[in-house]
Amino acid sequence: MTNSSDSSHEVIPAETEAALERVADYAARHDVLYSARAANIKQSAVRDVFDISIRPGLVSLAGGSPYLRSLPLDDLGRTAQRIIAEQGLEALQYGGGQGMEELRELICEVMAAEGITDADPADIVVTTGSQSAQDVAAKVFCNPGDVILCEDPTYVGALNTFEAYEVDVVTVPMDDKGLIPEELERTILRLKEEGRSIKLLYTIPSFNNPSGVTMEAGRRQRVVDICRDNNILVLEDNPYGMLRFDGHPLAPMRAGNPNDVIYLGSFSKIFAPGVRLGWALVPRHLHRRFYLACEAVVLCPSPLTQMLVSAYLTDYDWRGHLETMRVLYRERCEAMLAALAEHLPEGVHWTTPEGGFFVWVTLPEGIDTYPLLYEAIDAGVVFIPGAAFTPSDEASNKLRLAFSAVSPEDIAEGVRRLAPILQRALASVPPQDAAHSRNS
Amino acid sequence: MTNSSDSSHEVIPAETEAALERVADYAARHDVLYSARAANIKQSAVRDVFDISIRPGLVSLAGGSPYLRSLPLDDLGRTAQRIIAEQGLEALQYGGGQGMEELRELICEVMAAEGITDADPADIVVTTGSQSAQDVAAKVFCNPGDVILCEDPTYVGALNTFEAYEVDVVTVPMDDKGLIPEELERTILRLKEEGRSIKLLYTIPSFNNPSGVTMEAGRRQRVVDICRDNNILVLEDNPYGMLRFDGHPLAPMRAGNPNDVIYLGSFSKIFAPGVRLGWALVPRHLHRRFYLACEAVVLCPSPLTQMLVSAYLTDYDWRGHLETMRVLYRERCEAMLAALAEHLPEGVHWTTPEGGFFVWVTLPEGIDTYPLLYEAIDAGVVFIPGAAFTPSDEASNKLRLAFSAVSPEDIAEGVRRLAPILQRALASVPPQDAAHSRNS
Repeated sequence: MTNSSDSSHEVIPAETEAALERVADYAARHDVLYSARAANIKQSAVRDVFDISIRPGLVSLAGGSPYLRSLPLDDLGRTAQRIIAEQGLEALQYGGGQGMEELRELICEVMAAEGITDADPADIVVTTGSQSAQDVAAKVFCNPGDVILCEDPTYVGALNTFEAYEVDVVTVPMDDKGLIPEELERTILRLKEEGRSIKLLYTIPSFNNPSGVTMEAGRRQRVVDICRDNNILVLEDNPYGMLRFDGHPLAPMRAGNPNDVIYLGSFSKIFAPGVRLGWALVPRHLHRRFYLACEAVVLCPSPLTQMLVSAYLTDYDWRGHLETMRVLYRERCEAMLAALAEHLPEGVHWTTPEGGFFVWVTLPEGIDTYPLLYEAIDAGVVFIPGAAFTPSDEASNKLRLAFSAVSPEDIAEGVRRLAPILQRALASVPPQDAAHSRNS
Repeated sequence: MTNSSDSSHEVIPAETEAALERVADYAARHDVLYSARAANIKQSAVRDVFDISIRPGLVSLAGGSPYLRSLPLDDLGRTAQRIIAEQGLEALQYGGGQGMEELRELICEVMAAEGITDADPADIVVTTGSQSAQDVAAKVFCNPGDVILCEDPTYVGALNTFEAYEVDVVTVPMDDKGLIPEELERTILRLKEEGRSIKLLYTIPSFNNPSGVTMEAGRRQRVVDICRDNNILVLEDNPYGMLRFDGHPLAPMRAGNPNDVIYLGSFSKIFAPGVRLGWALVPRHLHRRFYLACEAVVLCPSPLTQMLVSAYLTDYDWRGHLETMRVLYRERCEAMLAALAEHLPEGVHWTTPEGGFFVWVTLPEGIDTYPLLYEAIDAGVVFIPGAAFTPSDEASNKLRLAFSAVSPEDIAEGVRRLAPILQRALASVPPQDAAHSRNS
């Protein structure tokens, strides 16, 4: 077997000078073969940090991995054994492109627990994670130059996916109650005056990734109404909704708006990311094209992992496990907020999430958090710089901290390691900028 | 739970007249939101037949499902149990976007068994089936209107995927020795004269789906050379290569051409489709963009199913199982060829595959096999009409028969049921057409 590194192709010891030249020649000749959209296919800063994060000794406040240790792994192993031994001919074979009927029925129960009570299994497409549904949404609805509106900040994976279709992602300001309806109206008006074609509003209304901010209940219908009035589809991404710390999830925007919202759910946070399963609940009149586009990408989601998830939702106390998770994430969030309050210098602000995985930290203006990442790694802690979460190329004075996968002790230690780096950054910023930020 | 059908949205009993009108209104208003490419996202005829094929009593010669009954399901169940119980925190968590290193190393061993001896795990991307790799290839390389060359006929899933990117799929004639190099040159010349931009040659050189035809060894390098000379990348799709009946697979086009060929492999036919795993071996200078595009679609392939496949390749006699499969598929192919010779009327021709899953049947010109499908279903047998396998909208006098998933007895019975339908079709065709076809 070849001993090689994943991340670097720079050293090619076995090849001769001549072979290297040949490759360079190929690279030059093949460069013209790339599509226009290929130039937009970028490395996610989150994934950049993914490899670094698993170094021993490092406290990673970077990746939004769910906590899996409380899953009943022995039991799940036996369930998988039974599925393969008894239903292996189905589990290991091709399946339908829409996903298995049993799972789609169970997904309706999951959504009902959150407030969507009118979903029909026929309107669901099971997807290879909700990332895949975002990809298909952009593919089915967006021409190059079309606009997708999103919160500022928003999920980096969605940004990368949309930009791969040459979509113009335009941000709408949010405050601590989520997307600001008046700003949404203003943005739409401005874009329409410019003659732009707006297709989708992509929103993570509950515990936005990365900000942790929740769109308050009162704003949700208002946002849907604005989009309906402007013939814009809402693409509601709700992987964290059930993880509201108080155990009472807000009704998704899809509830009561079956024709206006494409709703994306995921098993990554309420069960396990490794099964790579999510779903889209699609308005009936849009369902067929959406489903066919999903099928063209993967043929079908894995029947094996679908059956494992179906068994989990049928034979296990998934609601009880969610309750355990809520308590655990709340404790971790509290540990993080306490550590931030204890260690971070004056002039630094952060959000107070009601659920989910993330706290969003704002430094005074004029500070770029990207170079701070390398100092942080040297100090033994990792975060994601804020620039990852906006379509803008400008430097960002924000950073994302994830509390989901780290113990309260490690969270405290991570923040302790981070604090002096932020302190030094604040000391180096021109005073008027710092003062401005403190008052903002 | 809602009792609903997957395939039909036509009957919506619970909704009132007014609600139906509202949906129709939405459908009209949202119609303008589709992307230009959405019009190209079509139902695959193969998938159309997928649901029909599982009706009891029907002999399906339609779907190219692999035979799974000889897999050691009890043992595989225990392997899955061990993976989840002992490595569940890894198997059920997010993984790297490129796929796990261990699996990529094992994939190099698999490819070496077929003649690709210089693959580096660093140049591999593990994909959610090889369908997903086809999707990414079109995404990364093709602008709307760009040309992908392919065999005529070719894999319907690839056609659907390419057309979803508004690619112009242009066919190159093949004979019983595969793609004809002179025709390839002629097609390229013509397209270049028209000012067209040709990006890829998509080819299934071994046991082409649907024709079962193999590109002979002598033509393979010639085809690569022609593509190199014209700066066209070869996209070699090789899911069946190891299933050559004589046990000696032909060297893939990628062997010896590391910079010219993107090679697609799949575990669907050599292990099981339900794990939804394939791979792309990408020229080093193109690897990074390809890998990032894969990541933007699914984040990562399932670590759980990757670990199951790794265990299968490590702890099981996968070569022995492949040998069993080769013998089984050869028997089935022979049963089909014997039944065709016994039952089909004069004037019908078919291919004699050296491996894979399919026989391709040609009727006299003037016969459209699509309407025959419905007669066949009534008679208790299913096939795929030939029109599915070309980008042309014209009627086709061909049909695909799959022998992979059906017992020799059922194959014989299926062909027996099919014969009178073809006989009637031949009887109804104008004599000069039939005569023409017999001589063609």
